[in-house]
Amino acid sequence: MTIKIGILGYGNLGKGVECAVKHNPDMELAAVFTRRDKESLNILTPGVKVCSVQEAESMKDEIDVMILCGGSATDLPVQTPEFAKCFNVVDSFDTHARIPEHFEAVDAAAKEGGHVGIISVGWDPGMFSLNRLYGNAVLPEGNDYTFWGRGVSQGHSDAIRRIEGVKDARQYTVPVEAALRAVRDGENPELTTRQKHTRECFVVVEEGADLKRIEEEIVTMPNYFADYDTTVRFISEEELMRDHKGIPHGGFVIRTGKTGWENEHSHVIEYSLKLDSNPEFTASVIVAYARAAYRLSKEGAAGCKTVFDIAPAYLSPLSGEELRKHLL
Amino acid sequence: MTIKIGILGYGNLGKGVECAVKHNPDMELAAVFTRRDKESLNILTPGVKVCSVQEAESMKDEIDVMILCGGSATDLPVQTPEFAKCFNVVDSFDTHARIPEHFEAVDAAAKEGGHVGIISVGWDPGMFSLNRLYGNAVLPEGNDYTFWGRGVSQGHSDAIRRIEGVKDARQYTVPVEAALRAVRDGENPELTTRQKHTRECFVVVEEGADLKRIEEEIVTMPNYFADYDTTVRFISEEELMRDHKGIPHGGFVIRTGKTGWENEHSHVIEYSLKLDSNPEFTASVIVAYARAAYRLSKEGAAGCKTVFDIAPAYLSPLSGEELRKHLL
Repeated sequence: MTIKIGILGYGNLGKGVECAVKHNPDMELAAVFTRRDKESLNILTPGVKVCSVQEAESMKDEIDVMILCGGSATDLPVQTPEFAKCFNVVDSFDTHARIPEHFEAVDAAAKEGGHVGIISVGWDPGMFSLNRLYGNAVLPEGNDYTFWGRGVSQGHSDAIRRIEGVKDARQYTVPVEAALRAVRDGENPELTTRQKHTRECFVVVEEGADLKRIEEEIVTMPNYFADYDTTVRFISEEELMRDHKGIPHGGFVIRTGKTGWENEHSHVIEYSLKLDSNPEFTASVIVAYARAAYRLSKEGAAGCKTVFDIAPAYLSPLSGEELRKHLL
Repeated sequence: MTIKIGILGYGNLGKGVECAVKHNPDMELAAVFTRRDKESLNILTPGVKVCSVQEAESMKDEIDVMILCGGSATDLPVQTPEFAKCFNVVDSFDTHARIPEHFEAVDAAAKEGGHVGIISVGWDPGMFSLNRLYGNAVLPEGNDYTFWGRGVSQGHSDAIRRIEGVKDARQYTVPVEAALRAVRDGENPELTTRQKHTRECFVVVEEGADLKRIEEEIVTMPNYFADYDTTVRFISEEELMRDHKGIPHGGFVIRTGKTGWENEHSHVIEYSLKLDSNPEFTASVIVAYARAAYRLSKEGAAGCKTVFDIAPAYLSPLSGEELRKHLL
């Protein structure tokens, strides 16, 4: 009996989920749902149907877990509660400040429908959150550090693209090596935004554009760039396509803390990710949690959960015996 | 309402648990139990009683979780099942090959007594196991690497001490930097025992001892040293006390794996620990899981569990709302 997965939304993340399902023999892709014209969509998996989002509800018996691959700004706040009424769902809602209200909405809907909804799955929120929690629980007296990068920030790249005269752009978030080193050395530094990350922008401009003005607009942009040391490099469209096609990302979660009767011993816990493809890795985490959603639902669970609420064994296709024998 | 902790066995680990309880305001130390003469034992926490192990059963209503701090060779295989009949228990059983039988024994006893027993808690098994499981679940096509060190191996130090003419010794397990680098670079190397770790031995000898014979006995010792590149340095007792008094340890769990339709993207997940005190860190992990044992028991759970079976939220003193707000 394989776990039947539905994908709602076929952008980078949806495609990543499709690939991740292929890597998990206990799962199969049941259908991809889209708001676009379904005839125009070519998916990778042979023999799997593309359906319009309106067809989803009528297919609820064919799908064990629906994976919601929309954006956190406008899609997921609506979709996840809506679909949790009819399906077990997993999403990657990543607007940290709005997680509490999203949780409440999904919890009510999932309980109403008798389904499991797992929200905010991926690497941050997701694997990074887990490591923050484990680190805090194990070393209650200590400091937390999260660094992101080196990697492409989609939001920051988009912000640059909206500037007049810009044709295309790619923004990399880069952790400051000296800050990382100070944290690892247990110095427990207090770090400002500027001291933690720098931002590198690769920008393609339209012919005759005013480079000086564009650079100025970027580096002074509030929220996005003003609080950072930002480097702008103008490159050709060919260079952008050649050198900046990928969507790499990654980062570090570090917990430093003390133990001993008089806090005489120091410890450093570090978790890091180096990812060639941000959406494919996010999708891989989501698919592991889809397995958990399926199992929890089979056990009769209902309601909203996060990575904090799910015992690790639920993520693995191996039995308890196998896990204890091979991974403990 | 604080969680009342009992400690059985007051060696380095027991002392570490005592310190960890001090760092967790929702816990208090109820008593320390010993097989030694209880009058001879001086513990750090003022006002807490030292009892003989025979008194434990009569005090079961005063203790929420009993933490078993004995050794894996002979103590825990007997003690954990025995105490699981009367108490919620946590141990750090670390003989990987015998975990399945230990699990069965503790599971039967804990179910009989209606208690929760969490076994094999610490960092390996423990936090490292968790990271192996999460890594395997998220990247099903990949490779696992565990490196230990740089740190003191008690078992290897003891093995050297048993050689004739040796007064004292300290053995460090050291990961091979080149192997670590190859793994991090995603080369997926196949590594022999010798390629992963080296062993450094600091040895104090009795006057007139035959250094050449001792070194030969060390480096050729089967299981312990013969399969490794081993360095032996003879030092004075003063140097040993001055430079090698601590019990540092640490290590790395790395999962490398592929995603994408044609496995075209590589990812590296790395978890590492740098610990000033191996027993105090182990104790800190145990105490977080004691919180989980207490809560699970309050919910009516019974039987044996490992770190794989416990949702992360159970480890934290914070509520679900607080966790979602601050750590997700």
